[in-house]
Amino acid sequence: MNKVNQLESYLNELGIDAAFITNPDNVFYFSGFKSNPHERLLGVMVFKDAEPFLICPQMEIPDAKNAGWESDIIGHADTDNSMAILAAAVAKRTGRLNKIAIEKSHMTVERHDALTEALGDLEILALDNRINAMRVIKDEHELQILREAAELADYAIEVGAKTLKEGITEIEVMTQIELALKKRGVTHMSFDTTVLSGPKAASPHGKTGDRKIQKGDFVLFDLGVVHKGYCSDITRTLAFGEPNDEQIEVYNLVLQAELASLEAVKPGVTAAELDQAARNVIEDAGYGEFFTHRLGHGLGISVHEFPSLHGSNNLIIESGMVFTLEPGVYVPGKVGVRIEDDVAVTDTGVEVLTKYPKELQIIQP
Amino acid sequence: MNKVNQLESYLNELGIDAAFITNPDNVFYFSGFKSNPHERLLGVMVFKDAEPFLICPQMEIPDAKNAGWESDIIGHADTDNSMAILAAAVAKRTGRLNKIAIEKSHMTVERHDALTEALGDLEILALDNRINAMRVIKDEHELQILREAAELADYAIEVGAKTLKEGITEIEVMTQIELALKKRGVTHMSFDTTVLSGPKAASPHGKTGDRKIQKGDFVLFDLGVVHKGYCSDITRTLAFGEPNDEQIEVYNLVLQAELASLEAVKPGVTAAELDQAARNVIEDAGYGEFFTHRLGHGLGISVHEFPSLHGSNNLIIESGMVFTLEPGVYVPGKVGVRIEDDVAVTDTGVEVLTKYPKELQIIQP
Repeated sequence: MNKVNQLESYLNELGIDAAFITNPDNVFYFSGFKSNPHERLLGVMVFKDAEPFLICPQMEIPDAKNAGWESDIIGHADTDNSMAILAAAVAKRTGRLNKIAIEKSHMTVERHDALTEALGDLEILALDNRINAMRVIKDEHELQILREAAELADYAIEVGAKTLKEGITEIEVMTQIELALKKRGVTHMSFDTTVLSGPKAASPHGKTGDRKIQKGDFVLFDLGVVHKGYCSDITRTLAFGEPNDEQIEVYNLVLQAELASLEAVKPGVTAAELDQAARNVIEDAGYGEFFTHRLGHGLGISVHEFPSLHGSNNLIIESGMVFTLEPGVYVPGKVGVRIEDDVAVTDTGVEVLTKYPKELQIIQP
Repeated sequence: MNKVNQLESYLNELGIDAAFITNPDNVFYFSGFKSNPHERLLGVMVFKDAEPFLICPQMEIPDAKNAGWESDIIGHADTDNSMAILAAAVAKRTGRLNKIAIEKSHMTVERHDALTEALGDLEILALDNRINAMRVIKDEHELQILREAAELADYAIEVGAKTLKEGITEIEVMTQIELALKKRGVTHMSFDTTVLSGPKAASPHGKTGDRKIQKGDFVLFDLGVVHKGYCSDITRTLAFGEPNDEQIEVYNLVLQAELASLEAVKPGVTAAELDQAARNVIEDAGYGEFFTHRLGHGLGISVHEFPSLHGSNNLIIESGMVFTLEPGVYVPGKVGVRIEDDVAVTDTGVEVLTKYPKELQIIQP
């Protein structure tokens, strides 16, 4: 049963007349068509008892067809009232809608109001949890793409390691990494490639800049690629030249924390337990205040997706889930280390998708 | 009067207790702090009679301070209920809120519901038009940044033109352009750099790919940079080798259309009149059906911002507005041409920010 059919069954089961999907990542999930519509209307309308359709800007219709969407496509021009066109397309296919499900975590208040006005008074339900529940379990086809995406991320770190030399700037290193990936056919990164050196690595959200790499720096790489519509996300922290005792201590602490969380991954544990497994190691060593973020996040079509792996999330981990494990310790102005893997939950444990070595790598200047 | 003070005056004038700004581009406009919070809460709360504050993820507080925000900053961790923290910060500063204004075109239904729950029952008004009205008129500081951003876009086209050679792929050309920009300190493009060659240029939303440039191709470049938080956006279509008669005819038609719209820009005309000025030229030549999109869009902190320049927009053009003019003709499978300038409206007419030549440039193979 394909994904649209699954959603149709769900609508039937719950007596919901239709679902309107407008988050571009979800549109891709259900239709195979990936597009950033900016402020224009793009969506998939699925009914409990009528043929689904895709609505998109007129000029994107050929691309949507090429992407493999086989049901109707409704186009709208910039001068059109796209909601009126949507309502007419709905009216053509089915009777009055009484209940519709939308992504409440994506649809804006403005569009919600316009939808209500166009379709008439109706009950609006949240579709978010259902889509999360579908997307969170990856099938073998998706897992294979995620493995390939992770392999490209490994390669990016390799390139980064080779590019390091005294005096090269963070931006120059980043550029060389992205250039190498483009040569392998990567057209999009999952997010801005991050290269942080020296004390800057101690800022968990620092920005790649003009700082020159120096002997004794830790260099933190955080990056990922978009591959066949799916994301990878890796972090490695490398030593450029001989590290000092504090750097080595913090590095090994983060590594132990990451391994502890990895060890804990299997169906049946909770997200909070995974977070705690890493956090315990860091807290026991007295660095708890410097691990300032959650353990990780779901990974798939979106680089940050459901579920969030933090200490108050009691979600039960299941086979087929893919997420990051990325503990970090940031001692302001001194030393910052984060180690991040992409992992897939198996029936009995875990498959680690990112494979670049995690023991401290010392790059000789 | 700074932007927050202007907003405070507006709230006082209309008797609105507070405005909560969460669109990252608007947060930057009011606070100077540019950040992508993903799903986390980031916002500026402005009151009619209390000190404003910024709310952001805990770990971004130092960056927000560095960006120049001088009022309070409220942090929240991943495990916090950020809306409860927001409500407590509000309660500390003022009495019960009866009316609050939000960006209805940005805030999601889910966040709207959480905000209502956290702050208690209150009237929620749209702030969008007010912020649009502020952002649409650029001050001299902003105009200067936009001029610099446009200059970098011109340079990108120059690099693209020099990079063209027989057999080079679109992606390789794109990579060379972005590499050259990075060397000039550009860390972000406004959107995915587009290089489309031959028949692909006839797809207005085609994607840069592996196609090799051939003699006789038109090559369409559409790109822009983010510079000091502001965007540029230029399109030029160059001939690689001698163009045929149809290519020359379409090119000159689009050029005449672009010049006609440029000629028409001055305070007092409407957006629709500008669109029509370009469209008339193309329609009169019998190519109307191939000009499938609007004339242009506002440009500033966002690459697509208010106003939209299309045939049903009766907005009156004013001095200080900055937008694109980008007519195009796309004859499917045959020839595609778009020419796009960034322009600023002056008291008497127009200043063209992008300066790369528009007469047909023939690159010799």
